[in-house]
Amino acid sequence: MIKITFLPDKKNIKVDKGTTILEAMERAGISIDTPCGGKGICGKCKILVVKAIDTVTPIERKFLSEEEIRKGFRLACQTKIFKESIIEIPLEIRLDFNKLFTSKLKGDIHYIKKSFSLKSDLRKVFLDLEKPSLDDQRSDWERIKDRLSLMKIENISNLKVSMEILKKIPNLIRRADFRVTVTLYDNEVMDIENGDTTKSGYGIAFDIGTTTVVGYLVDLRTGEELSAVAKTNPQIIHGDDVISRIEFVQKQKDGLEKLQREIVNTLNEIIRETAQKAGINKNNIYETIIVGNTCMHHLFLGLNPSNIAPAPYIPVIKESFCLKVKDIPELELNLTANIYVLPNISAFIGADIVAGVLSTSMWREEKIVLFVDLGTNGEVVLSSKKRLWACSTAAGPAFEGARISSGMRAIEGAIEKVKMTNKSVNWQTINDIKPKGICGSGLVDLVCEMVKLGLISKSGKIINRKSCPPKISEEIKKRIIKSKEGNKFLLVKGDKAEGGKPIYLTQRDIRELQLAKAAIYAGIKILLKVVGISPDNIQEILLAGAFGNFIDKESARRIGLIPHLPLRRIKFIGNAAGTGAEMSLLSKKMREVTQEISKKVKYIELSSRPDFQEEFIKAMSF
Amino acid sequence: MIKITFLPDKKNIKVDKGTTILEAMERAGISIDTPCGGKGICGKCKILVVKAIDTVTPIERKFLSEEEIRKGFRLACQTKIFKESIIEIPLEIRLDFNKLFTSKLKGDIHYIKKSFSLKSDLRKVFLDLEKPSLDDQRSDWERIKDRLSLMKIENISNLKVSMEILKKIPNLIRRADFRVTVTLYDNEVMDIENGDTTKSGYGIAFDIGTTTVVGYLVDLRTGEELSAVAKTNPQIIHGDDVISRIEFVQKQKDGLEKLQREIVNTLNEIIRETAQKAGINKNNIYETIIVGNTCMHHLFLGLNPSNIAPAPYIPVIKESFCLKVKDIPELELNLTANIYVLPNISAFIGADIVAGVLSTSMWREEKIVLFVDLGTNGEVVLSSKKRLWACSTAAGPAFEGARISSGMRAIEGAIEKVKMTNKSVNWQTINDIKPKGICGSGLVDLVCEMVKLGLISKSGKIINRKSCPPKISEEIKKRIIKSKEGNKFLLVKGDKAEGGKPIYLTQRDIRELQLAKAAIYAGIKILLKVVGISPDNIQEILLAGAFGNFIDKESARRIGLIPHLPLRRIKFIGNAAGTGAEMSLLSKKMREVTQEISKKVKYIELSSRPDFQEEFIKAMSF
Repeated sequence: MIKITFLPDKKNIKVDKGTTILEAMERAGISIDTPCGGKGICGKCKILVVKAIDTVTPIERKFLSEEEIRKGFRLACQTKIFKESIIEIPLEIRLDFNKLFTSKLKGDIHYIKKSFSLKSDLRKVFLDLEKPSLDDQRSDWERIKDRLSLMKIENISNLKVSMEILKKIPNLIRRADFRVTVTLYDNEVMDIENGDTTKSGYGIAFDIGTTTVVGYLVDLRTGEELSAVAKTNPQIIHGDDVISRIEFVQKQKDGLEKLQREIVNTLNEIIRETAQKAGINKNNIYETIIVGNTCMHHLFLGLNPSNIAPAPYIPVIKESFCLKVKDIPELELNLTANIYVLPNISAFIGADIVAGVLSTSMWREEKIVLFVDLGTNGEVVLSSKKRLWACSTAAGPAFEGARISSGMRAIEGAIEKVKMTNKSVNWQTINDIKPKGICGSGLVDLVCEMVKLGLISKSGKIINRKSCPPKISEEIKKRIIKSKEGNKFLLVKGDKAEGGKPIYLTQRDIRELQLAKAAIYAGIKILLKVVGISPDNIQEILLAGAFGNFIDKESARRIGLIPHLPLRRIKFIGNAAGTGAEMSLLSKKMREVTQEISKKVKYIELSSRPDFQEEFIKAMSF
Repeated sequence: MIKITFLPDKKNIKVDKGTTILEAMERAGISIDTPCGGKGICGKCKILVVKAIDTVTPIERKFLSEEEIRKGFRLACQTKIFKESIIEIPLEIRLDFNKLFTSKLKGDIHYIKKSFSLKSDLRKVFLDLEKPSLDDQRSDWERIKDRLSLMKIENISNLKVSMEILKKIPNLIRRADFRVTVTLYDNEVMDIENGDTTKSGYGIAFDIGTTTVVGYLVDLRTGEELSAVAKTNPQIIHGDDVISRIEFVQKQKDGLEKLQREIVNTLNEIIRETAQKAGINKNNIYETIIVGNTCMHHLFLGLNPSNIAPAPYIPVIKESFCLKVKDIPELELNLTANIYVLPNISAFIGADIVAGVLSTSMWREEKIVLFVDLGTNGEVVLSSKKRLWACSTAAGPAFEGARISSGMRAIEGAIEKVKMTNKSVNWQTINDIKPKGICGSGLVDLVCEMVKLGLISKSGKIINRKSCPPKISEEIKKRIIKSKEGNKFLLVKGDKAEGGKPIYLTQRDIRELQLAKAAIYAGIKILLKVVGISPDNIQEILLAGAFGNFIDKESARRIGLIPHLPLRRIKFIGNAAGTGAEMSLLSKKMREVTQEISKKVKYIELSSRPDFQEEFIKAMSF
């Protein structure tokens, strides 16, 4: 076994000879973005060797410059450990960006839960029980039940109690001197506690994304959100999209159990941290809501998602249902707590979208509304006269900065905005530090500006210096550089960038963006066609998802990601899935609505429509 | 570690130095009767050392004759292992007497299940499902549900399915080429299987006794009992009554978990053996009924029985309820199978009695019926005009041959009948082999005969030779032998007994029997008093339990164990608890009746009645 130390965490771990750095990081609990799943294809897992390890593989030479190799940069997935080493993990590849996903207030509109006057059905009742005697030999359970029925609590005629609760009753009620608090949900006893704890009843809503898992802790009495924590989905080490996760399940022994355990561990961390932040006891969490895409839904439940990936794309279950914490191995909540899994719509439209739709007015108003969740999968929902249609398109990870040469997620140091004139290029980074790369919104801005200036053609080509429109200055022209794979555009010079490496927009980056925006726009067009309305009829476009919060509406419209409508009709709704999940946590009625929504949505399978390819090709141009 | 071999099983086990033979036997899975719980008080755990071990402890000298010690007999609980040894376990102390407890036909009356035309609610349906396509993207679960709803099966509008079933659906239905059998109970999916298995649906009823655990495997379609297996409750090694089990829970770390595991292991063996005998797959067992005394009920469920033992005798739960196999750790049945735990009446009147009452007409006819279950606890139930009263009395283990100098259980070689004249003593053993000891029915017979001949006084004393009535022959008189603890009576001479040791009836044996019969009779008297009827009014006395099957009605009546009524009113009903459990297995209605019975029974706490002691003392004399 060889010791390896990770900086800046100073985490040590011992591994077998020949273990890759990526595997060692996984074991040490350090997550980074690995879009290719550790296959040496994307070159994103660049780490810095501080001490030892000095071999370089041919694959690494492909992705690293001579200078980088000299400085000690290596690819974590290619470098094997044969001696004691110290490795530094650069911050920009770390997936640790809590704030981004827990803030829901960035949206233009936020349908506040309280507007529905949501009220949980959880009831906590304090009982001062009579003590047993030879004249009163009722069983412990009868004693509790009889008292509850005296209190005229509704709906407890057929009271249910689990083995877990029954087991703790005899010692607990005697230790409590027969003064206990009973927690009820419907006709079920959720908990019995020593003394009066009637004020402590909480719920937690989880949004399990392919990349990020977020938990929102809510006080079930007041409806208030007490704390929220986001974590990277640790499965990301197996690849950044759902397909790579499904492959993992199919190829690895116990792959499904492993992926389930990884998600559950993350939920456990979120439970601990949200409870700690809010200063509550996690045993008082009685209700849980789960949303996520259909694959994450299956993986959380331990259901095999293998039939989601190939046509005809069949999930195991779509409808909502309720299970118990004990049905999920190792989930660290009160064993009797309920877990409500919200419904999915299809293999590629999950409960996260259902929850997102719930948080809007689409399902209850007559308006024509277009809901777009921008991510690796672009999910599009269209409403008209309370009817709903949806489709899902594989946009690829370009919006999240993946497969983009200098791409990165929307974290500190990412270029998030770009403005250009014929003479200058101006950019802005998150937290105003030296740029490390470009994130989705920056990419959209940059391409939009270059299209406007005529530097990118309608078909998406970066034009040659010579063919630039006459008004373009030399300063700008100089940034267009020829390369084997077409022209590239120098956005930030090496001396101004963090790490000293220039930031380019390559021809391939533009192609990636074109594929992404065309997929989404073609999906929108097909939905409009199915419903028989034109883009002009859309009264509201709602942009959801983390990326949706940062994008410039005008740029998005200009590059043809969304239909060309007046800007005031385009709205950000932030983390709509989280909002909808919280609403469902607080209200049975809202949970029923999600089931209604999922049934009402007519799912349009794009792969079976011959006209989709046509629309897709049309949508490629700018 | 030292190797120890047990004969005749030829089982080997390795143990630490200093382990007692009893502990080693327990680990090897060999159960014997240890009434004192291995404390060196009863001398019953007599085993034969074939090789090695030769020390003798003072306690052993108390219980073993010089000759026995020379031959190699030792007490298993006192003898520690320090070198490799071979030990023979005599058959008569083995608890392995399957037939005794599984035969229910010995009773005079046997309320046949079919008289109620019992029909299980289990439904198995074969489905030939449509295969998924791009035009039919229903989830696997929807596909199954939709087909079921087309088949007009009642009561499945709100169909429930467990995670266990959901997890296996995707692979199973594809392996089965979409031809599957769904098992339903109420609105719940119990199983999904490959192909057509509609003919295989079984249930198992367990009667968990302090000493013996019996399982009855039943075909739920036909109501037929397919096989039955009895096993010794392995907890017997911790003592032979419920109090010693409760002490074990209180004193041992993880005592409750240990006792639960011991019962569950026994149920698992019974499940395997009944399934094997019947030639069925145990995964097709979907329903389970549990009856037993209240302490066994708690131990099976993992509920702490500690408050059952001290006044005011409080169980955790009395009412019936349904749980899932997964609520019982390590129970080897289909995880989704239902377990119905029948209701208890009080800390000392368990579900076995409720099931016993169910198997009679007591709860549905106007008759005055007295139900007596003879065991370590004597449970008495009295019915009059469909009202029911019950009490429980601590009879002690005399009827089961324990605490009787030559006592043994009603297994091969036990003297089960005794007839005497003034000149001769005749006895009969089970299976007509050389006598090994005397069982409960033989003891009752012997005492009865001696009382009739005037050899035992009204107060229970064996009289001196000189005081014998004149008609008693010398042959009989010679059998009365003086000893320090009063006279004893030689029933079988050493040369005629197995093992060469004479079989005596001691003064102390008679006292044990007096205590047992007086406890039961006093209980009966109190019930009659509470109800306000005289013994003559009783229209039927029903004797239940294994011991009840062997006793001579006339002797029982003569010694004052039961009221003096015409013999035709006294009936054996065999293993009534097993019959009632099977009835409940087959019918929801019958399960409801057990709940009604348990509520209807007025429990009379004898310990709070000052007149009980009075009746008890009166009932001591013959």
